[in-house]
Amino acid sequence: MSSGAHPVLAAAADAASAAYRDVRSKHSREELAETVFDGADGTPSMFVDVVVEQAIIEAATSLGVNVLSEERGWVDVGSAVTLVVDPVDGSANAAAGVPLSCFSAALAVDGRFTEALTSWLHTDERWWASSTSSAYRTSGRREINGAAVSLLRPHARNQAAWGRVAGAAARVRVLGCSTLDAVFVATGASDAFVDAGSDTHRLMDLAAAAVLVPASGGAMVDAFGRPFEFDPDLTRRWSGVVAATPELAETLCELISGGIDPAAEE
Amino acid sequence: MSSGAHPVLAAAADAASAAYRDVRSKHSREELAETVFDGADGTPSMFVDVVVEQAIIEAATSLGVNVLSEERGWVDVGSAVTLVVDPVDGSANAAAGVPLSCFSAALAVDGRFTEALTSWLHTDERWWASSTSSAYRTSGRREINGAAVSLLRPHARNQAAWGRVAGAAARVRVLGCSTLDAVFVATGASDAFVDAGSDTHRLMDLAAAAVLVPASGGAMVDAFGRPFEFDPDLTRRWSGVVAATPELAETLCELISGGIDPAAEE
Repeated sequence: MSSGAHPVLAAAADAASAAYRDVRSKHSREELAETVFDGADGTPSMFVDVVVEQAIIEAATSLGVNVLSEERGWVDVGSAVTLVVDPVDGSANAAAGVPLSCFSAALAVDGRFTEALTSWLHTDERWWASSTSSAYRTSGRREINGAAVSLLRPHARNQAAWGRVAGAAARVRVLGCSTLDAVFVATGASDAFVDAGSDTHRLMDLAAAAVLVPASGGAMVDAFGRPFEFDPDLTRRWSGVVAATPELAETLCELISGGIDPAAEE
Repeated sequence: MSSGAHPVLAAAADAASAAYRDVRSKHSREELAETVFDGADGTPSMFVDVVVEQAIIEAATSLGVNVLSEERGWVDVGSAVTLVVDPVDGSANAAAGVPLSCFSAALAVDGRFTEALTSWLHTDERWWASSTSSAYRTSGRREINGAAVSLLRPHARNQAAWGRVAGAAARVRVLGCSTLDAVFVATGASDAFVDAGSDTHRLMDLAAAAVLVPASGGAMVDAFGRPFEFDPDLTRRWSGVVAATPELAETLCELISGGIDPAAEE
């Protein structure tokens, strides 16, 4: 991590990592996956999420930083700085024992994202960037032909769009951890990551990507052109398109919204 | 690993791990992914595969064990014991920098699989079992409802079957690393892993699963009922169905071959 990084990011990642290890050592898969209540984002909160979130909130607020998180929502300590955080992205993986889950957070200063950190909970590998500086470069790929694309799983409501993207891509992955997928785009390991129009993405699924990927030469947009912005209303949804270049992002948006015949791409 | 394990498995895994780290530190993504020649299995061999395979062949043959591997094919030193090995399962992931690739091997003694080891190359975590003894237990799930299922990516030739499986499953993953997917089934982290009828699986994609998963309470079969067996003809293909229980395997086979209406499952 850069010496210019805000200390709350490392402190929150450390707290998440310790809480994750602790809760996994003490509880069964069934206990970790148990739904505790419906979170501020309107989706069910698993026990593992709630425990890790609590540790993060304590770490961040003790440094005088607000927290906006999926279960508890907005914890406002009167700061201009807010930690927008997904305590355990890929909760289902984490609870089951599939080692693909991340702590992921972005800092919003007066509503603008300034820096972000994603940490892979299984290995504690960390990726940090500010909106003006990144140590990573995307693959630079502009064309869908030959592209490696990660997707959220298909749903009945977006099956056709999902099939268009998967059919046009050279490689397809579904990892169940959006923030790790975005890291792979930022570092050039993968060419793109999309929610193919299912409107599943919440603010904290995309906040780190919105910093890491553009700073590394890529693009992060919504498939339907809606602005992605800081908003404490956690019921808002997007279909994030995270890509190595703006050109590839545009092609993916067209595939998702139906503007490209995938057969013509092959 | 058990003290009863054949020493060639650990020796080959150590050799693979060292060669993998070395080749990744010295070569670019483009060099790692370069196609060197078409392997004995009829698919293109990447540079990373060839380098790691060479290290494994040296380690195994120096212990007097035959090797059957995807690039070089059958290296017969006259032993009754053969190491059936995928040097780098998930080569595309490995070359690109997506940390989901494994060394995976099974021992065949006089043509019968007796023990297997899969090692995650990114972390060197290892999973071993013999055909009669495993430290792992599958999830025990019998029903497709609620199941977490990993799949190979969809192809044009099996799109309908892929959609039936994905539509019936509660969670869907595509990791691009069959042997790691099989480990997750053996350890209960995931309920099943399938090639949904694309006939992509080769002997070494499934050899370790054929030991690890049944020994842990699950099942490993071909979607179309063909026997899975040791065969030095590496052009043979299967559609592997790896599941937590024989009942779940049977349901998945029916979904893949078209015998179940997925709508009736929901």
